[in-house]
Amino acid sequence: MKAWSDKIRKIEPYVPGEQSKNKNIIKLNANENPYPPSPKVIKALKEITDKQLSLYPNSNAESLVEALANYHSVQPEQVFVGNGSDDVLALCFMAFFNSKKPILFPDITYSFYPVWCKLFNIQYKEIPVDENFKINPSDYYTENGGIIIPNPNAPTGISEGKDFIKNILNNNKDCIVIIDEAYVDFGGYSCIELLKEYDNLVVVQTFSKSRSLAGMRIGTAISSKELISILNAVKNCYNSYTVDAVAMQCGIASVNDNEYFKSVISKIKATRERVSKEFAKIGFNVYPSHSNFIFVTKPDINAKNLFEALKNEGIFIRYFNIPRIDNHIRITIGTDEQMDILIKAVKKYIN
Amino acid sequence: MKAWSDKIRKIEPYVPGEQSKNKNIIKLNANENPYPPSPKVIKALKEITDKQLSLYPNSNAESLVEALANYHSVQPEQVFVGNGSDDVLALCFMAFFNSKKPILFPDITYSFYPVWCKLFNIQYKEIPVDENFKINPSDYYTENGGIIIPNPNAPTGISEGKDFIKNILNNNKDCIVIIDEAYVDFGGYSCIELLKEYDNLVVVQTFSKSRSLAGMRIGTAISSKELISILNAVKNCYNSYTVDAVAMQCGIASVNDNEYFKSVISKIKATRERVSKEFAKIGFNVYPSHSNFIFVTKPDINAKNLFEALKNEGIFIRYFNIPRIDNHIRITIGTDEQMDILIKAVKKYIN
Repeated sequence: MKAWSDKIRKIEPYVPGEQSKNKNIIKLNANENPYPPSPKVIKALKEITDKQLSLYPNSNAESLVEALANYHSVQPEQVFVGNGSDDVLALCFMAFFNSKKPILFPDITYSFYPVWCKLFNIQYKEIPVDENFKINPSDYYTENGGIIIPNPNAPTGISEGKDFIKNILNNNKDCIVIIDEAYVDFGGYSCIELLKEYDNLVVVQTFSKSRSLAGMRIGTAISSKELISILNAVKNCYNSYTVDAVAMQCGIASVNDNEYFKSVISKIKATRERVSKEFAKIGFNVYPSHSNFIFVTKPDINAKNLFEALKNEGIFIRYFNIPRIDNHIRITIGTDEQMDILIKAVKKYIN
Repeated sequence: MKAWSDKIRKIEPYVPGEQSKNKNIIKLNANENPYPPSPKVIKALKEITDKQLSLYPNSNAESLVEALANYHSVQPEQVFVGNGSDDVLALCFMAFFNSKKPILFPDITYSFYPVWCKLFNIQYKEIPVDENFKINPSDYYTENGGIIIPNPNAPTGISEGKDFIKNILNNNKDCIVIIDEAYVDFGGYSCIELLKEYDNLVVVQTFSKSRSLAGMRIGTAISSKELISILNAVKNCYNSYTVDAVAMQCGIASVNDNEYFKSVISKIKATRERVSKEFAKIGFNVYPSHSNFIFVTKPDINAKNLFEALKNEGIFIRYFNIPRIDNHIRITIGTDEQMDILIKAVKKYIN
């Protein structure tokens, strides 16, 4: 026991997901995009100047904020940009969840939510999803300190529509409601249009999935001007310059190449539909996915063993040792070639 | 008053330093480096691959950590890398200042320290520096929740040596002592060598000043393995991937080009010595600087008016409307050409 032990934070050393240095693996475990970012992003990267590297970037990432405002048809004052959507969500938790009442989120969802609650001493209550992993909106019509729901949800991939979100909002006018749309571009319903009606709604999105920029760390929040101004105030009290000059230029190039963006999305959606059918054909229960992954289970197959067997074949998928989903696996949608290798390996395993 | 007002954070919208979109100004207000980063950084930037952009980066920035460990002759487990030194410092405040006793820092210092204390509800006490803006070490020999001291200090540029740091450490074995070495490369004393003797010492450095990479956001903490593991745990509970793939490669290229690094430092030091003499010659009190800026005052000149006059000439320096230093200005060391224009403008103003 050190003399200073009582002054430092007691925290469980959290271990992030495993990474392999083997470049030959088929990586279907982190919901990354198998396609490269727009060629315009690569071009923007090569055009970065000395001065952009040596001077501080604009602290509000203004030029990227403007590109996003234009893309989403909102005002620039409604857009916030951060160092990946985890940074944006962490700042949202600090800014918007400041009540003594517990915040609410589903029990089966993005595993970072309870981690932020513990870090910032926020009370929380996990609301069980139903036996089909669906979220029941009326479970959220109780007093609370705030709500966060991912739509589509992860790791299930299940998506809800406009009525669902409106029901949540209509019954929660006295708290902040965050909808985490990390996977929305793959066919989900984006509630950005509802910002016109609700000033307590915050929509969070990311460049890591649909825009093939996980390596570049860009996330965004879109909300009312009032909440974005609070978010900027909290950000500027934490780290004034979170989005570097290169990320800013790459982000702008990505937002401005809508044609490329759409072509990547449609390739992934087509592969997802085909692969979902293939898995159903060999006896898997496949949850309807509106994301870039599928969530599957086969009652007579031990999910963890399948996960390990695929890993030995050089195919990385995601297994969660979490109650209720510990016989399920999550598979990121890769290229058609990658998915063919996966399906072959799964068939070999179950036969 | 909104229905949700009591659930969000009450925070003063903090406004970061002013930025100009005019590219013709002489920018001596943010302690940026007037020289470009190493040509090897530019080369590394152009060699970034599609895969580095589309996949998540290594969450601990391992390859950059290794380059830094090698550079500082410490173990990789003693090195932490973050999204600029503000991110590193914010995480250090969260990780290491968790006592009910107040933390201590000088009254004239980096203005972000009290901002983090307020954000994270950390008690603090500002210890007045003496009439020559020197820190008296014995002021820090009282019970406290932790200590942070910049060395060299900002905005004074005044540096302290090994005995000063050892005195602080010998009298504070039961708390964490952070030495913020943002400006150390410009001639200050780095206490990294003391890590062998003290396991409660944390040294924070940045790539924004001496390495000409303010636009790229890279900061680092070097400490005992035990404290770095706590810092990583807190970081991984906030945002697992703070250092993007491009920053990582640029950072490595910078660390590996020591020859270029030294040549930039010696140019800035030579300019600083010359400019300090020039300012003394025209009647300014120039504090002895070991950083890439000088801090000056002239009793018969109103600092704020001089600041405004220079701004009208397109020369941006830094003025602080803060008690004790409100008749001082801080001037970043630019190129020799930039400093000649500045000196000419100052002479014109005072005559």
